[in-house]
Amino acid sequence: IVPRIIVWFLWFHGSLRFCFACYTAGNMSSISVPPPKCLQKPLTVPYRHMFGPGPSNVPSRILEAGANPVIGHMHPEIFEIMNDIKSGIQYMFQTQNKMTLAVSGTGHSAMECAIFNAVEPGESVLVAVNGIWGERAAEMAERIGKAHLAPPGGCFTIEEMEKALSKHRPTLLFVAHGESSTGVLHPLDGIGQLCHKYNCLFLVDSVASIGGAPVYMDQQEIDILYTGSQKVLNAPPGTAPISFSERACQKIFSRRTKPVSFYLDLSWLANYWGCDGKPSRVYHHTGPVTAFYSLRESLSVLVEEGLENSWERHLKVAEYFHAGLESMGLKLFVKEKRLRLPTVTTIVAPYGYDWKEITSYIMKTHNLEISGGLGPSVGLVLRVGLMGCNSSRENVDMVLAALKDALKHCHKSKV
Amino acid sequence: IVPRIIVWFLWFHGSLRFCFACYTAGNMSSISVPPPKCLQKPLTVPYRHMFGPGPSNVPSRILEAGANPVIGHMHPEIFEIMNDIKSGIQYMFQTQNKMTLAVSGTGHSAMECAIFNAVEPGESVLVAVNGIWGERAAEMAERIGKAHLAPPGGCFTIEEMEKALSKHRPTLLFVAHGESSTGVLHPLDGIGQLCHKYNCLFLVDSVASIGGAPVYMDQQEIDILYTGSQKVLNAPPGTAPISFSERACQKIFSRRTKPVSFYLDLSWLANYWGCDGKPSRVYHHTGPVTAFYSLRESLSVLVEEGLENSWERHLKVAEYFHAGLESMGLKLFVKEKRLRLPTVTTIVAPYGYDWKEITSYIMKTHNLEISGGLGPSVGLVLRVGLMGCNSSRENVDMVLAALKDALKHCHKSKV
Repeated sequence: IVPRIIVWFLWFHGSLRFCFACYTAGNMSSISVPPPKCLQKPLTVPYRHMFGPGPSNVPSRILEAGANPVIGHMHPEIFEIMNDIKSGIQYMFQTQNKMTLAVSGTGHSAMECAIFNAVEPGESVLVAVNGIWGERAAEMAERIGKAHLAPPGGCFTIEEMEKALSKHRPTLLFVAHGESSTGVLHPLDGIGQLCHKYNCLFLVDSVASIGGAPVYMDQQEIDILYTGSQKVLNAPPGTAPISFSERACQKIFSRRTKPVSFYLDLSWLANYWGCDGKPSRVYHHTGPVTAFYSLRESLSVLVEEGLENSWERHLKVAEYFHAGLESMGLKLFVKEKRLRLPTVTTIVAPYGYDWKEITSYIMKTHNLEISGGLGPSVGLVLRVGLMGCNSSRENVDMVLAALKDALKHCHKSKV
Repeated sequence: IVPRIIVWFLWFHGSLRFCFACYTAGNMSSISVPPPKCLQKPLTVPYRHMFGPGPSNVPSRILEAGANPVIGHMHPEIFEIMNDIKSGIQYMFQTQNKMTLAVSGTGHSAMECAIFNAVEPGESVLVAVNGIWGERAAEMAERIGKAHLAPPGGCFTIEEMEKALSKHRPTLLFVAHGESSTGVLHPLDGIGQLCHKYNCLFLVDSVASIGGAPVYMDQQEIDILYTGSQKVLNAPPGTAPISFSERACQKIFSRRTKPVSFYLDLSWLANYWGCDGKPSRVYHHTGPVTAFYSLRESLSVLVEEGLENSWERHLKVAEYFHAGLESMGLKLFVKEKRLRLPTVTTIVAPYGYDWKEITSYIMKTHNLEISGGLGPSVGLVLRVGLMGCNSSRENVDMVLAALKDALKHCHKSKV
């Protein structure tokens, strides 16, 4: 059943021996695809208020950092920048984990990195699906195995978690901390300890929440935590911070099989990021150096403000926003206050309106992105993300004014 | 043997029902990792002449394009930019393939994208290994199957290719066009036709060669072709153009199993890049929009010069460089002229010298990167890459002067 791979070697001893006699017949090919006209026009990019669920606006300081000259992916200076990034992620994640790095891809690649490395054939994964991120994790997990879907309708009490862990005895439990499709901030306390009671690793997606809501990787006993660069960090999309606990590393580095992906293989990534204690680094892939510059700068910004200040600011701004929405007569999709994600707010789609008309109107008239639902929340909500530098009272006022204007001008059915 | 994945659903009907009674116990966690001092220092990046095998220097025009403001990964403007990129890749690859896009990762992720999508369990891959890129492709292929290694020492005549194809009946044949570890430009004519005679797909790695040496994807019947952004294109590393023939698509879209990776699944990527003819695009991942800006700009530069002019410039500059090296008494690693990669030159490591001392001296004294061997060529060669904007007579003169200086000042053993 496994594919047979036949590797055919051409090797050389000192110098190369070649015998390409048959290739000497002249090249008969010629240019048949002309240069495209569209590329003769200059690149134009509009400025937008990026108040959707991400990517968020990138301050010029971070954009400029990314425009520094390219150096080598194995130069000592880039290793120093990568070490700085590592320290910044450890701070942002509140972890001492040595195995802390950034994946050269977006948040989804970090999700795959976690699942590919932690799971071996024959092992099971328990995915707590409460929105699109769980769906995606399940989709990834299914590709390296078979999925058993429990009937929908359950809810996540710690008792239910324990029941499921004890029933299925999974290797890995996935929870999305910030479920940006529904606007829910999933409580994390106690789940790590519970997982470890059942010899299970605890994997948390914090793409939409990190930096905007408290996460304590070590104290909450999270084994694998990842995020993306383009949300609270306000860096361009393209890199994804990730960290692995000692427990996760023990499991991963005693695998019997190699992970399916070479690109995301933690043993290679760990060496490239200087996390494996080995004296020298071996070429794995060409790190996106300019994206590392921006990521470092975005972590500097977080360090300057301080994590606790950032959490508090996001919470205060979210509360101010929620009060403003309610005073307009709009309803918040997440009823319970402490379960509301401070970074991405879900508003019940205003009754009688077409949500698409609202978001289009606001984009067109106010040059401002807010979005509709995603995955299971499509048609049910409007989503507003105020993350990192975007999380301010001024921006709340701008969004509220835009929403008021939209509700006034968009078509409302007579009900 | 397959992992069991248990997916546990929390769903909502209209609004969310939650019962988190057990989470209400106050959060006992607190900050334990202080803000790192290293991130309180500003980012500093040196300027280097990047004349190694890549990444190459990025002109300010392309760096500045990447510093444009972030827009949404699903905005119409980014789709237009992606369409422009698609046209540029079609031109660069000389293909009419609709299924043309850029992977959100480096060259290695495109290599995995090709192998993951084209190969199903039970199928075999033939990897022609003549340096590190074949080794890497074999490493990736092995992870989704079992590898049979033929003894080293063979060489790639078209007769040997036919013998191997007829013996192993593989699904996919991998060839690196520009093998930057050895400096070899592998002839491509005739291999595609041969593959199709044996119902095999032809996969070509052109990371180090595209734009600097002729490739005619359609006429040479290449089924999957990919490259990286950081070589001749002179864009920062982080995106990887790839294209699939009709024949490859037919095979891929009639798979019985899903590819192991969701992030690299062609059916999702095809939709995100508007290659599948469907009226709307579904959210797959957050495209690295600023990297797309740079990639578009780098393709514009290629379009302005013209592909044939670029090929000719690289060839002429390489010949000028090779003549200069030989007049210094240095030997080229690849004896046969027409097999020399015009983008990356391999020089036999000068006898009596420590190659590491030479590259370090040149970096330190001339602020210029050239590199040693990679994989099988470590210790045997020095490698100099002059790619895209770096391919000029002025830069050749700079490298020759630096080499002369190094040979004069570095320690030579008395032999």
